[in-house]
Amino acid sequence: MPKISNKGITMPESPMRKLVPFAEIASKAGKNIYHLNIGQPDIKTPELALEAIHSFKDEVIEYSHSAGFKSYRKGLANYYQNIGITINYNNLIVTTGGSEALLFALNSCLDNGDEIIIPEPFYANYNGFSTSAGVIVKSIATSIDDGFALPEIAEFEKLITPKTKAILICNPGNPTGYLYSKHELETLREIVIKHDLFLIADEVYREFVYDGEIHHSVLKLEGVEQHAIVIDSTSKRYSMCGVRVGCIVSKNKELIATAMKFAQARLSPPTLGQIAGEAALKTDASYFKEVSAEYVSRRDVLVEGVNKIEGVICPKPKGAFYAIAQLPVDDAEKFAQWLLEDFDLNGETVMLAPATGFYSTPNKGTNQVRIAYVLNKESLQKAIACLDAALKIYPGRTIQ
Amino acid sequence: MPKISNKGITMPESPMRKLVPFAEIASKAGKNIYHLNIGQPDIKTPELALEAIHSFKDEVIEYSHSAGFKSYRKGLANYYQNIGITINYNNLIVTTGGSEALLFALNSCLDNGDEIIIPEPFYANYNGFSTSAGVIVKSIATSIDDGFALPEIAEFEKLITPKTKAILICNPGNPTGYLYSKHELETLREIVIKHDLFLIADEVYREFVYDGEIHHSVLKLEGVEQHAIVIDSTSKRYSMCGVRVGCIVSKNKELIATAMKFAQARLSPPTLGQIAGEAALKTDASYFKEVSAEYVSRRDVLVEGVNKIEGVICPKPKGAFYAIAQLPVDDAEKFAQWLLEDFDLNGETVMLAPATGFYSTPNKGTNQVRIAYVLNKESLQKAIACLDAALKIYPGRTIQ
Repeated sequence: MPKISNKGITMPESPMRKLVPFAEIASKAGKNIYHLNIGQPDIKTPELALEAIHSFKDEVIEYSHSAGFKSYRKGLANYYQNIGITINYNNLIVTTGGSEALLFALNSCLDNGDEIIIPEPFYANYNGFSTSAGVIVKSIATSIDDGFALPEIAEFEKLITPKTKAILICNPGNPTGYLYSKHELETLREIVIKHDLFLIADEVYREFVYDGEIHHSVLKLEGVEQHAIVIDSTSKRYSMCGVRVGCIVSKNKELIATAMKFAQARLSPPTLGQIAGEAALKTDASYFKEVSAEYVSRRDVLVEGVNKIEGVICPKPKGAFYAIAQLPVDDAEKFAQWLLEDFDLNGETVMLAPATGFYSTPNKGTNQVRIAYVLNKESLQKAIACLDAALKIYPGRTIQ
Repeated sequence: MPKISNKGITMPESPMRKLVPFAEIASKAGKNIYHLNIGQPDIKTPELALEAIHSFKDEVIEYSHSAGFKSYRKGLANYYQNIGITINYNNLIVTTGGSEALLFALNSCLDNGDEIIIPEPFYANYNGFSTSAGVIVKSIATSIDDGFALPEIAEFEKLITPKTKAILICNPGNPTGYLYSKHELETLREIVIKHDLFLIADEVYREFVYDGEIHHSVLKLEGVEQHAIVIDSTSKRYSMCGVRVGCIVSKNKELIATAMKFAQARLSPPTLGQIAGEAALKTDASYFKEVSAEYVSRRDVLVEGVNKIEGVICPKPKGAFYAIAQLPVDDAEKFAQWLLEDFDLNGETVMLAPATGFYSTPNKGTNQVRIAYVLNKESLQKAIACLDAALKIYPGRTIQ
């Protein structure tokens, strides 16, 4: 029997995967599980996007251009122009979700064995795509104590080697909800210019920024036009994760021409998803206002609620729909499994994402979880009540 | 300005890409171009698939399971069972087109620097995916003189090194239309068992087999259950290339578990495409009968037509909808460009795919083109008339 590749063996598994069988058993046993572990929002897809699908007229579902339908690319360029990012439709390629945009970016910027610096904790699949592209992740620590702020330049410089080719940030961040300040982006600018690095920013949560804060895109950062690459997606913006449509954006023409070669190999991004995406561009501002208000109130319920629990620390996120919480437990992986296997409050429990999956440094984040506030407020309150009750009786509780 | 990766620089471009600007100029100048260069069929998508899209009921377009919707996987398993391939739904993962299935297969079977043997000429994008996965292609020559039959075992063994991990075939073949015989598959079985290799078969054209011939899937080949991997796609089967839905199939559980890690990193294949794919499974046999009859008559028009042109050799393909033709020209790339730039017959011309793009060996196939018979018979006849007239006056003609 032939041997599986080492790449396949070292490919990290989704951090939640180990919990899935326990959730299935709990669910079959009749437990009601509040899923705070996943990023699948319950917000409705804009009607415009659904209508475009219902009224699809073509008799053949054909390939699009490898860079995406031109009309959609023009629409996307217009979307960026409206938020002050001066690009045209040749500066972007439509991709199969933000996932593929990241894979194209990694393949175009980094060779096998090259290094990328990523502030930790970070979206777990960055590890998977890096393995897939043969890229080595060098994580730079951020701390829950200052809400996951960007480290100083000196900390970055300790990690930079001749193999370092790029810095990757997620802004606002999954799993932290952290929003980078203007000053932090200027720090990144200084580093990437000095060390001639690419600056890749995953900005898929751009619209989910709260409390009057402003999102600063790397595409607006002067002086790094040839360094900056944005990973974008329609998944969260329009609550249509299943269409698998995103894009890669950069003013660096050589970068886009290179990414285009990878795009051509896979022929075309999904046609139907692009049709939904193009229609969604006309979504009224009121949709985002409503969605944003909903997330703010959910966040407030969640963060206030969990911080009231003894021993829990949860910085208030300014963006996205995730928060990292530190729990008074020996091991968040064990606790998350225990919640599914051994706990219930009136037949209900909570599923959490252990934060270890978001750290590449071993033994970091072991007492932290990521909470996605993608449930309605009533469910969130019930989930918090479960968490509170569970932490009182969990055998591995670290405070008495 | 940071440097693009070497991987990006060496990533091969689509072979037709160089011709596209010339086609655009010709088209703008009012020339009518018969596109024999691409694999986008004009056959209608089954009504069932379109209806499923029109009547999509959900309010949120959500992710599916990373392996694809369970109901669709079960439907696919049933499809395979009906054609005598005894697999269950755990033996497959739904992918974003056949493209992603191949990428998962390469990433799961081969490490960076490992080698894969592919009979040449082969689908040009195999080169791209191999570069992307860090895999080295070792091509094994086949010849137009015997219709691109598989070489003898000894020829394969000349290429096998400790780095060889897999053999990849396309059956029926793009770009040759060649259909492997039972004996040829048995030859492959002997090699992969003896040298402990994976046997990856791209069988996306499985239904397009003519003249009463039988398609032999590697999944039916006894004794290589742990070696055989099938790449499949809905694109050509149901003429819906734009849905971007395919699958990877293998009875090797470790292989599927490994591919699953790559599947999890990219979250989900397209939801809408899967809905079309699942509905398409119910397509009546009469659809394929009609489509097959249409392709056979097109093939006959094409192959008989071009073989009548002096100096042209075109073996009659038994499957898919491509043929390789050898032309009496100095250089098929120059000829293809000349057809667009300098030739017309009553305002019409032809776009061909130079076969060099399908060879990885330099200077092979320089007088060959791939012809896709994806146009109706009337258009094909006009295209052949153009080709005939063009070859009579082309300055680089090699026969007098």
